[in-house]
Amino acid sequence: MLNSEIVNQLVKVVGKKHVLNELEDMVIYSNDALMFSYLPELVIQPANRDEVVAVVKIAAQYQIPVTCRGAATCLSGGATPLKGGIVLEMTRMNRIHKIDAINRVAVVEPGVITFDLIKQAAVAGLLYPPDPSSMKESTIGGNIAECAGGPKGVKYGITRNFVLAIEAVLADGTIVEMGNDIDGEMCGPDWTMLVTGSEGTMAVITRISLRLVRPPQTKKTMLAIYDDLEDAARTVSKTMAAGIIPTTLEIMNNQSIVAVENYLKIGLPVKAGGLLLIEVDGVPSTVEENAHKIVAICNQCGATEVKVAKTAEETEDLWRARRAVGAAFGRVAPSKYAEDSTVPRSLVPELIKRMCVIGEKYNVPIFICGHAGDGNMHPTILFDKRNREETERANQALDELHLVTLELGGTLSGEHGIGFAKAPFLRAETGDVGYQMGKDIKTVFDPDNILNPGKMFFFEGELH
Amino acid sequence: MLNSEIVNQLVKVVGKKHVLNELEDMVIYSNDALMFSYLPELVIQPANRDEVVAVVKIAAQYQIPVTCRGAATCLSGGATPLKGGIVLEMTRMNRIHKIDAINRVAVVEPGVITFDLIKQAAVAGLLYPPDPSSMKESTIGGNIAECAGGPKGVKYGITRNFVLAIEAVLADGTIVEMGNDIDGEMCGPDWTMLVTGSEGTMAVITRISLRLVRPPQTKKTMLAIYDDLEDAARTVSKTMAAGIIPTTLEIMNNQSIVAVENYLKIGLPVKAGGLLLIEVDGVPSTVEENAHKIVAICNQCGATEVKVAKTAEETEDLWRARRAVGAAFGRVAPSKYAEDSTVPRSLVPELIKRMCVIGEKYNVPIFICGHAGDGNMHPTILFDKRNREETERANQALDELHLVTLELGGTLSGEHGIGFAKAPFLRAETGDVGYQMGKDIKTVFDPDNILNPGKMFFFEGELH
Repeated sequence: MLNSEIVNQLVKVVGKKHVLNELEDMVIYSNDALMFSYLPELVIQPANRDEVVAVVKIAAQYQIPVTCRGAATCLSGGATPLKGGIVLEMTRMNRIHKIDAINRVAVVEPGVITFDLIKQAAVAGLLYPPDPSSMKESTIGGNIAECAGGPKGVKYGITRNFVLAIEAVLADGTIVEMGNDIDGEMCGPDWTMLVTGSEGTMAVITRISLRLVRPPQTKKTMLAIYDDLEDAARTVSKTMAAGIIPTTLEIMNNQSIVAVENYLKIGLPVKAGGLLLIEVDGVPSTVEENAHKIVAICNQCGATEVKVAKTAEETEDLWRARRAVGAAFGRVAPSKYAEDSTVPRSLVPELIKRMCVIGEKYNVPIFICGHAGDGNMHPTILFDKRNREETERANQALDELHLVTLELGGTLSGEHGIGFAKAPFLRAETGDVGYQMGKDIKTVFDPDNILNPGKMFFFEGELH
Repeated sequence: MLNSEIVNQLVKVVGKKHVLNELEDMVIYSNDALMFSYLPELVIQPANRDEVVAVVKIAAQYQIPVTCRGAATCLSGGATPLKGGIVLEMTRMNRIHKIDAINRVAVVEPGVITFDLIKQAAVAGLLYPPDPSSMKESTIGGNIAECAGGPKGVKYGITRNFVLAIEAVLADGTIVEMGNDIDGEMCGPDWTMLVTGSEGTMAVITRISLRLVRPPQTKKTMLAIYDDLEDAARTVSKTMAAGIIPTTLEIMNNQSIVAVENYLKIGLPVKAGGLLLIEVDGVPSTVEENAHKIVAICNQCGATEVKVAKTAEETEDLWRARRAVGAAFGRVAPSKYAEDSTVPRSLVPELIKRMCVIGEKYNVPIFICGHAGDGNMHPTILFDKRNREETERANQALDELHLVTLELGGTLSGEHGIGFAKAPFLRAETGDVGYQMGKDIKTVFDPDNILNPGKMFFFEGELH
């Protein structure tokens, strides 16, 4: 599809150095953190908005698929070039244009690494709360495309809650500005919400204004250990019912604990049924009071031990286990489905029960962890995709997990996105009318379906 | 257009009692709080979603305009039936389906009066923060349609920030569900944001899930008086720059103070250039600390007096002046343009300066009040529309006010909506590309343009 004339036109836009087309490059850009690969034909690395406009115009002219990519940490295949064509790698557009402390707004390019923004905001005395586990690699553009969350979501909200304005390039190369730099106040519908979570199917994001908040004065971290995972889950419901809103409320089941202990050897309780990692933040008096209440609730719910970190070092120790989950799971089995099934927080105990049933039914290990405080669970199914029979069981377990999540009034994705991994189930979540509406609106934005084709409402990949 | 056969079909759906067609009724339903009237042909009062579906299907079949109406407190003409047809009065659909304390979600019908929800949420120990001045009359459906704000917006956000899920009837009578009851986490774009702020042009809202929050433990209210309005405005910037986020930060200029004093006779400082009404809430220690800091900033900025309310009664006294603004202005002149020009909060002093210049230039009194803390100002131009020359000057001042607001990076509407009053200026805010995108998306939702026609992106009214 991409003849030398088209390639030459693209080289003129971004320079030879930033047009990759060797096979070894294409293999690298053929997938994200989901384990399915589709080769692109070309990788383009634009330096600024005008280069994006020029590239998109060429792509529109020749009807070439364009798949945006940040750091490609996406777990649902959002950055995978399902229909080949161009991968538009946005990481060179990584400038923080400004951090405005009075209006509490950051204006950034999409390739800014999330943690870099967090650090810069901190320098200005402010906090950018969304903190996906990938934050040290993942980009703000990717976070917006997939609507990333993170442990702090329970108190502060997820990426969606921090987007104020988006400048984007539409599928025909025109530039549109949506929203403004005022804190949430704008006339008419908030069009930025059509791009946020749309996984690069609507437009190419070139500039973003993000809301910043005041950081908490202090925080306190606790680790509660349980014989029974359900007691941990009940602690979550009871804490929320008591009106305490922790900053984070993370859960891990026995298999997750064992996997992490085998990886890190830090003396985790490998016989525990589950543990909770709980953090509260705010002004000192409230933090102290809430920490006391939470310890009491943990004990009431049957915790066998509750550790409260006394120093920054002890806090770091408590977090170590949770942070190592991804790497630890990778050592258990070569293949994984890392899900983000999300339900109303009161139904977390029920979802956990149902996940255990599914794991037994299909005889697959389901490693459970996640942001229990906002109902955003991370069940991970580990298997070896070279073993067909095992893979089949994993696939069936995954399908049932999606259906159970929807049955509980949940969503297929709290923060990883639909990509193509979950696209076959999307209609079950949106309903027929909502699905058609999504298709129609995608068509308004991108009538020729060149932006990340084959995903979301125009799913054309293979299931599993 | 509405022959007896159609009327009979509608009577069959909602019952004779709930189909109004007498001229005196039509006059009542011909406008909202904006002073321009357009007569509908019929008023229909549906009792539930199924009746809405049936009415919309009949309207679609015969291509009859449908304009939704809650309490019609809208200041921009959003609920005015610009193209005649049916006014769909939603106030019978006023049930609070549930208040879920654990998941902190309220599920309500669109006709619920905002203050009724606030009271019911309080019974469950929770807070629904958006508090537009009209909250004792206005409905949740109308609040969502116009994306209402209120004094608490500076700390808690506006209506948009509290919408989790919307069930709506599309223009062809099909039902769509958008979002879910989970706190902000959903897959794909947040479609509820296409309906929120769309002023009834996209769909008819029939059920809403709203996020609730924990109420603050305590609050403190202060009133600061200034010789010079600009000193009051500087206090706003300085307070925000100091990292204090008050619950409310309201400003009033001399003319507003005089109008309210003439109305209420409560001993307001009629010679003051301006005053600030400031409230902080949270845990007692923080409230105390922030109140101290704010009093210091007020004094630094030249406040001649700062009153701190010591009792609930004193708090009520301080609020009385601000709450009476609407009624007080109504006694000054028979006609008004009550605007909600909103700019980044750091530019409030500049906007105030520019408003004063505009008032002088066109020799019209501009009464200034508003939610200065989030940049959402309420300049009100008072005049007598029976006086053509005076009206012309008011119109010119209004037009310039809109352009100045946009020049400062602001938005035409922070909370009152576009309706038809500001529709002629919408393109200047969205840009040509954004405007066309809005038109195209409206067309997806409502291809025959029967829902609130003539508004927003399909403006067909008269300017002024």
